[in-house]
Amino acid sequence: MIVNDGQNRHQAKNIIFMVSDGMSVSLASAYREYLNQEPGHLRKTDIFNRHLVGQQSTYSLDPWATITDSAASSTAMATGVKTLNGVLGLDPDMKRVDSALEVAKANGKKTGIVVTAEISHATPAGFAAHVQNRTEYAEIANQYFDDTINGNHKIDVMLGGGRNHFIRADRDLTKEFQADGYDIVHTKQELLNSTSPQVLGLFSEFGLPMAVDRWSNVTPSLAEMVGNAIDRLNTGDQGFFLMVEGSQIDWAAHHQDIVGIISEIDDYAKAFETAIDFAKKDGNTLVISTSDHATGGMTMGVNNIDSWLPSYIRKIQSTPEHIAQLTQESNDWIQVIQDNIQFELSSTEQNKLRAIHNTYVYTYEEKVSRLTDAIKEIVDRRSNTGWTTGNHTGEDVNVYAYGPAAQYFSGWHENSDTGKMLKALAANQTPEIDDEDE
Amino acid sequence: MIVNDGQNRHQAKNIIFMVSDGMSVSLASAYREYLNQEPGHLRKTDIFNRHLVGQQSTYSLDPWATITDSAASSTAMATGVKTLNGVLGLDPDMKRVDSALEVAKANGKKTGIVVTAEISHATPAGFAAHVQNRTEYAEIANQYFDDTINGNHKIDVMLGGGRNHFIRADRDLTKEFQADGYDIVHTKQELLNSTSPQVLGLFSEFGLPMAVDRWSNVTPSLAEMVGNAIDRLNTGDQGFFLMVEGSQIDWAAHHQDIVGIISEIDDYAKAFETAIDFAKKDGNTLVISTSDHATGGMTMGVNNIDSWLPSYIRKIQSTPEHIAQLTQESNDWIQVIQDNIQFELSSTEQNKLRAIHNTYVYTYEEKVSRLTDAIKEIVDRRSNTGWTTGNHTGEDVNVYAYGPAAQYFSGWHENSDTGKMLKALAANQTPEIDDEDE
Repeated sequence: MIVNDGQNRHQAKNIIFMVSDGMSVSLASAYREYLNQEPGHLRKTDIFNRHLVGQQSTYSLDPWATITDSAASSTAMATGVKTLNGVLGLDPDMKRVDSALEVAKANGKKTGIVVTAEISHATPAGFAAHVQNRTEYAEIANQYFDDTINGNHKIDVMLGGGRNHFIRADRDLTKEFQADGYDIVHTKQELLNSTSPQVLGLFSEFGLPMAVDRWSNVTPSLAEMVGNAIDRLNTGDQGFFLMVEGSQIDWAAHHQDIVGIISEIDDYAKAFETAIDFAKKDGNTLVISTSDHATGGMTMGVNNIDSWLPSYIRKIQSTPEHIAQLTQESNDWIQVIQDNIQFELSSTEQNKLRAIHNTYVYTYEEKVSRLTDAIKEIVDRRSNTGWTTGNHTGEDVNVYAYGPAAQYFSGWHENSDTGKMLKALAANQTPEIDDEDE
Repeated sequence: MIVNDGQNRHQAKNIIFMVSDGMSVSLASAYREYLNQEPGHLRKTDIFNRHLVGQQSTYSLDPWATITDSAASSTAMATGVKTLNGVLGLDPDMKRVDSALEVAKANGKKTGIVVTAEISHATPAGFAAHVQNRTEYAEIANQYFDDTINGNHKIDVMLGGGRNHFIRADRDLTKEFQADGYDIVHTKQELLNSTSPQVLGLFSEFGLPMAVDRWSNVTPSLAEMVGNAIDRLNTGDQGFFLMVEGSQIDWAAHHQDIVGIISEIDDYAKAFETAIDFAKKDGNTLVISTSDHATGGMTMGVNNIDSWLPSYIRKIQSTPEHIAQLTQESNDWIQVIQDNIQFELSSTEQNKLRAIHNTYVYTYEEKVSRLTDAIKEIVDRRSNTGWTTGNHTGEDVNVYAYGPAAQYFSGWHENSDTGKMLKALAANQTPEIDDEDE
């Protein structure tokens, strides 16, 4: 086996494959405006602009849904095979197909998965599990331990959420991984203290808190997790394959929460920057960033208004849902909102919030949900943010790339071609793609 | 002056610059699904997929609108200078800046403008006029005649709509152009009969009818106009610069009319194909296709539904507005709708239409407008099409390219960088772009 020596621009020793889950072209552009908007002036470019190389399709082969879910899309990017919605690591006939991460491990590379969702959630699971239904979380976590390659566990570094899926009444996978030499860590400090080349980091029961709501001394940022993973993985002669997901861009988009989305894109962009910085120093690392699909149908501009105003979004200190939760812990609840929003609420806005707060509802959840919606509506109206859906949308997504073999990802590809190229590179081969229509 | 010999891949003898006005990434993806969707199967690629090279920004330097209009965006792409919304061919200080078309003419190239809007509309006017307000249509048309370069009119071939702006009470520009040797044509047949190297084709008072509503024996398609323009322009040693606009993708998107949009994208795609086919045979022609901005915030998928179903759109024979007009000319108006829609209306859909038809309104226009909206709503519900606005949205748009120097348009650029590169190429020079952040 020949591992790329850094002179060959058609292969790469190390591969960092990053997924900004649900990040549409509109959301990527909105992030630049959020960072750099100064009306009347040229905007600075951001890390996405500087590395754009093309786009990929997202649709699956599901006969009942023309728009993909994360499982089918992850399977396409991980294995090179489009499948049905909800399916992980299996083709439409439910036959197992190897992922790029598994190919990398079989070729002696170290491997990692770093996400802000549960480690056993659909997008990471497409790279390391094989199940007919993405909701088989316990089975997915079991496969991470049980399904070995050449006698070794297939993922050396796992960082993210999903403690509930690993520590269960029927089985405690943390004990089993620990017995096999993995460090088990639950906080940022424990992660920093751990020195084992293999680690399972479970920083939350479910997904991590969204970036803007995170306690940065307890929960690591995506960039910190990526940097830590690279340090651990970048030790062998054969290189590494690291899969990274900014998982909750999608979750916030399902909730049509522009504050949560932007904070999650920012968290992801910094992780992308960490990966690019490493690749620039290393010289033999390919970094790809793309999305599995778009979510929410967000646009800058709504209802015929021709300005999108992120200045309001920049001021807000927490997601609308978190602010709504905080109101339930204070008598001076309107001040809690005011403090977290950091722009002066109009009397109409205050009146709407008071009407909801003063309406009797049965449950805490219902009250929080209504207040969350009201706060989101204020943010959307102030910023002129539009939405079409609480689900995925069908358009192509951007592909960003840096490093050796990045040129193969230029132009437009099927998401399954992305997977085929990743698998070839994971096997230290040069990608071959039929451009039949050229 | 050295004109590219076809071996130099950094310059191009001929430049065809095409603008799909208002075509967002979502609309481009929707067109592929419209053409090729077969749920459960791999879609064929379309002409856009095969030529994607990157994206460009669209925002202007307007301090009061963070989202561009067509005038500012056209000025950026034509002159290399971002300006204020509404402004054509002037910088933010209202100083005149030359366009790529004007530079081409000054360098001995033949020039053309082919659009489906008025020839004097914002996007084409950015390439050949200099006014503070895009609504100065008469002044724009006057400048096309009066503002000469080296004693010659600056545009050799003008094909599109806008008869009202050229034939006016105060001045008849068709007579003036005719006196200077231009053929004046008003129908497809007259265009085909004309043999003059210079031609002014005015196929409508205002914009042309949308493609799906067009009478193809009277009004030429965009592809027919582009082919005709290329034949006329491809005769000199110095090459040509041809600007093309699929103008009414944007207009249909302002109306949130997916039927009109798709028919206009199809008309544009065929024109793009005509340009690419010529460039492939010629070997010394650069073709660029991009958009000035996105319009409408259309998404495949709306209200949490995960299928977009263009099969309904494929069946419809006219735009909703045209169908609504036809209902006013028939007693059996519901049958008129049924015949044009070509799928079985449900009883709920019929009831809604009957309620509107039977409501007394003051004017013909109001009745047509309400019926149009009702038909559009039926199409949107059947196809699961979402919208956020009747205006422009702020995200980046795709750039497609083929031919020598196409590589300069790869990756992400400001729309003004597109203009700078076009101007360099129009002067038979190699583009130079500072990638400051690299």
